[in-house]
Amino acid sequence: MPDVTIAVDANGADLGPAEVAAGAITAAATGIRVVLFGPAEAMAGARGVPGIEIVDAPVSIAKAPDPASAVRSTPEASIVQAARAVGAGEADALVSGGSTGTALAAALFNVKRDRGIHRPALAVPLPVPGQSVTFLDVGANAEVRPEHLVQFAFMGAGLASAVLGVADPRVALLSIGEEAVKGNQLVREAHALLLERAAGGGLNFVGNVEGNDLTGGPADVIVADGFSGNVALKTIEGTSQAVLSAVRAAALSSPRAKLGGLLLRGALQAFRDQIDPEASGGAYLLGLRRLGVVPHGRFTRRGFSQAIVLAARGVDQDVVGRTHRALEDAGALRGAPSDAAPSVSTP
Amino acid sequence: MPDVTIAVDANGADLGPAEVAAGAITAAATGIRVVLFGPAEAMAGARGVPGIEIVDAPVSIAKAPDPASAVRSTPEASIVQAARAVGAGEADALVSGGSTGTALAAALFNVKRDRGIHRPALAVPLPVPGQSVTFLDVGANAEVRPEHLVQFAFMGAGLASAVLGVADPRVALLSIGEEAVKGNQLVREAHALLLERAAGGGLNFVGNVEGNDLTGGPADVIVADGFSGNVALKTIEGTSQAVLSAVRAAALSSPRAKLGGLLLRGALQAFRDQIDPEASGGAYLLGLRRLGVVPHGRFTRRGFSQAIVLAARGVDQDVVGRTHRALEDAGALRGAPSDAAPSVSTP
Repeated sequence: MPDVTIAVDANGADLGPAEVAAGAITAAATGIRVVLFGPAEAMAGARGVPGIEIVDAPVSIAKAPDPASAVRSTPEASIVQAARAVGAGEADALVSGGSTGTALAAALFNVKRDRGIHRPALAVPLPVPGQSVTFLDVGANAEVRPEHLVQFAFMGAGLASAVLGVADPRVALLSIGEEAVKGNQLVREAHALLLERAAGGGLNFVGNVEGNDLTGGPADVIVADGFSGNVALKTIEGTSQAVLSAVRAAALSSPRAKLGGLLLRGALQAFRDQIDPEASGGAYLLGLRRLGVVPHGRFTRRGFSQAIVLAARGVDQDVVGRTHRALEDAGALRGAPSDAAPSVSTP
Repeated sequence: MPDVTIAVDANGADLGPAEVAAGAITAAATGIRVVLFGPAEAMAGARGVPGIEIVDAPVSIAKAPDPASAVRSTPEASIVQAARAVGAGEADALVSGGSTGTALAAALFNVKRDRGIHRPALAVPLPVPGQSVTFLDVGANAEVRPEHLVQFAFMGAGLASAVLGVADPRVALLSIGEEAVKGNQLVREAHALLLERAAGGGLNFVGNVEGNDLTGGPADVIVADGFSGNVALKTIEGTSQAVLSAVRAAALSSPRAKLGGLLLRGALQAFRDQIDPEASGGAYLLGLRRLGVVPHGRFTRRGFSQAIVLAARGVDQDVVGRTHRALEDAGALRGAPSDAAPSVSTP
């Protein structure tokens, strides 16, 4: 991908800016141009590496308790500078090493929401084996209205068809029962709106799914509010790790089991790789004028490299344009001009 | 437990009333008295078994779309008769084979809420290895207010200390970030209320936990609204099964792996048993004048037997009385008499 430039905020990662810079070096080796915003000193290892530009931006607001006001009051912060570069078209996409809330606030102010979009959403491929399920919102919006969920449905379907090549993706709503009457008020109202959309032919809505369907259900795209979506995603990650730890413990419980574990190790590694969150690179931040990618703050260089590659791939495949057109074709963009005042939610 | 009588609704289980009756036979063999409500013909296998009484109640409302109105209009339904027997003191606890919504509605009308309780809640021991985490609400209330979550905290703490023997249980709130400002409005308000309680010394509130903490976190009791709680519980169950299936698939992928799987099988079985939802018997329905237990509708006879044993154990350990006293001691019972009108929520 020779013509893609990714702006990367190196502040906020658990392992520090040097780890993010190390990931950038790997990504740059594939031909992606990377602009690193962070403390230049800490990222000295990336200095002079072909394809990498370093902008000295030591100020971090990654841990600010109120992201929106921190973004407003700290124009020199690394995430703000990175988002500004994307907003100005100097870079094609944003990758944030810091908190989701700060990245979201900086992006809303500087990259801006795409025309007709209520709220940006975080979309991930679920870290489950043998599946290709797109799950959103996993944390951009702790509080949403039913019409937001409807737009998330189209955004997820657009992503699944544009990027993953899923034709006519089956879209489901996360609830606590399959019947339309199940769930809280938000979900029941969204269900009714999605049924209308499906009747209009614009969306392949397959109804509600439950938590256990996330890891093997009948849907290509699953829509949730950012609170339950975030809880569910982290529950999947935690449970996978807990079960694998238990398998490991079982494989140490006797000489016989130890031998079994040794013989099985190679076959299990492929599975471990499949569910490794670092392998996916993080979540797409959809609904902005340009693409964002939010990796886990706890990623190593490998995960940050993957995040930069994910962002570049999304630019290359025009995720923003194709998602926008999917929403436009379905008439799912927000119409009312009175609706257009910018707002920032703090997840 | 010679002096405990459990009323069991045999209608609504996926495998039918005969399977529930088979579970009752196993439970009755331990000395528990069981009254089975359901179609007598289908439960003929339990006829004449010592300790088992059969009440012919063929009418089922387990699949009724509106549980509250079905309960009101169908006094002859098996779940209504079973709940009535518990309300009248003819049985000590209720076990329902049908839908949670119907069991909850029948119990609210016929067993009635315990004095001072806002809302009943469903509490489960989390099916994770090596842990003893009580999680509630897992589906009784799709919509709650902050003060309901506070009461759930005390109910969970009461259960954990009374039944599981956890001294001064650490209580956490499920959210999407550890900081008090994270989460949706409901969780932020509940967090503030719980901090007040903790400051008063009545509750060991340890703050927010995230989805990944459910399977290995720093809490003995985790509180959630019934929507996210249900999503999280089912996500844990689905993910555990998906990971175990993947391990099984890995163990079939080559002759070497096959041998490894064989050698490991015994050690893994213990773990499988630990996370098997049937082994736990289901969820306690807390907050009523007498105890309820809600097993999964998909349980086999083994799970229903466990559910009956769980109910009897809860009666024997006076879960209702001890939970009530824990709430009373903490001043967490609802005071205002104007608050006392009965209401039924349909999850």
